[in-house]
Amino acid sequence: MDCIFCKIIAGEIPATKVYEDEGVVAFLDISANSRGHTLVVPKQHIRNILEMDDATCTDLFVKVKKIAVAIKNNLNADGLNIAMNNEKSAGQIVFHAHVHIIPRYAGVNEIFNRTKYTYKEGEMEEIANGLRVKF
Amino acid sequence: MDCIFCKIIAGEIPATKVYEDEGVVAFLDISANSRGHTLVVPKQHIRNILEMDDATCTDLFVKVKKIAVAIKNNLNADGLNIAMNNEKSAGQIVFHAHVHIIPRYAGVNEIFNRTKYTYKEGEMEEIANGLRVKF
Repeated sequence: MDCIFCKIIAGEIPATKVYEDEGVVAFLDISANSRGHTLVVPKQHIRNILEMDDATCTDLFVKVKKIAVAIKNNLNADGLNIAMNNEKSAGQIVFHAHVHIIPRYAGVNEIFNRTKYTYKEGEMEEIANGLRVKF
Repeated sequence: MDCIFCKIIAGEIPATKVYEDEGVVAFLDISANSRGHTLVVPKQHIRNILEMDDATCTDLFVKVKKIAVAIKNNLNADGLNIAMNNEKSAGQIVFHAHVHIIPRYAGVNEIFNRTKYTYKEGEMEEIANGLRVKF
């Protein structure tokens, strides 16, 4: 399976993981829209929400909620966008379902701008360490 | 409670509903980013995902999934964005939790552009009628 997220799940490609359990994995997006931008991914290879069963959907979004709360508290975010792109015309690039959690900081980012954040050396690991201890 | 979504749920303000059950209501967003842009709202007044219990989160997102599939099939959308803005800095305007389902049509819209769609007379009702029969 030539799927980058399946390879991350299998440990074949490194990622800065912030959460993992039997059903999902969450890691920092290397193409970040803001500091702490996280992807939550079901371990099962499912294309997107249009092909997802109820149990996977439930598990995914309850974890998204818990991780969103942890991100807000750990990173002192003022708010968060949760976004999921389904199919190419909606901007889906990796065809393995994933939910974006994009923290927002007052005065720094604004939704729907294509803001970008560049991590400093070691910063991703530092963020992930802070988040991990909450689980 | 001076909440526009609570008033829609109570039937005090009209909305073009596409789905309703004991837990959620879904209606067309009058400020549409695309044709068929729908809001899915828990009936319980909850500020956003950060204050949501697991049961409400589960019910909300399983319904979002079902409605997304219905929208894609009924409106011949090519894809859909699912988005939830939590807190002001993330663009939340109405402080009653709601999930956007934004259908995308190849060549017409692109994610993260602030595209707008203007409904023709009677078109919202026509769309809602088409969606309703699927439930």
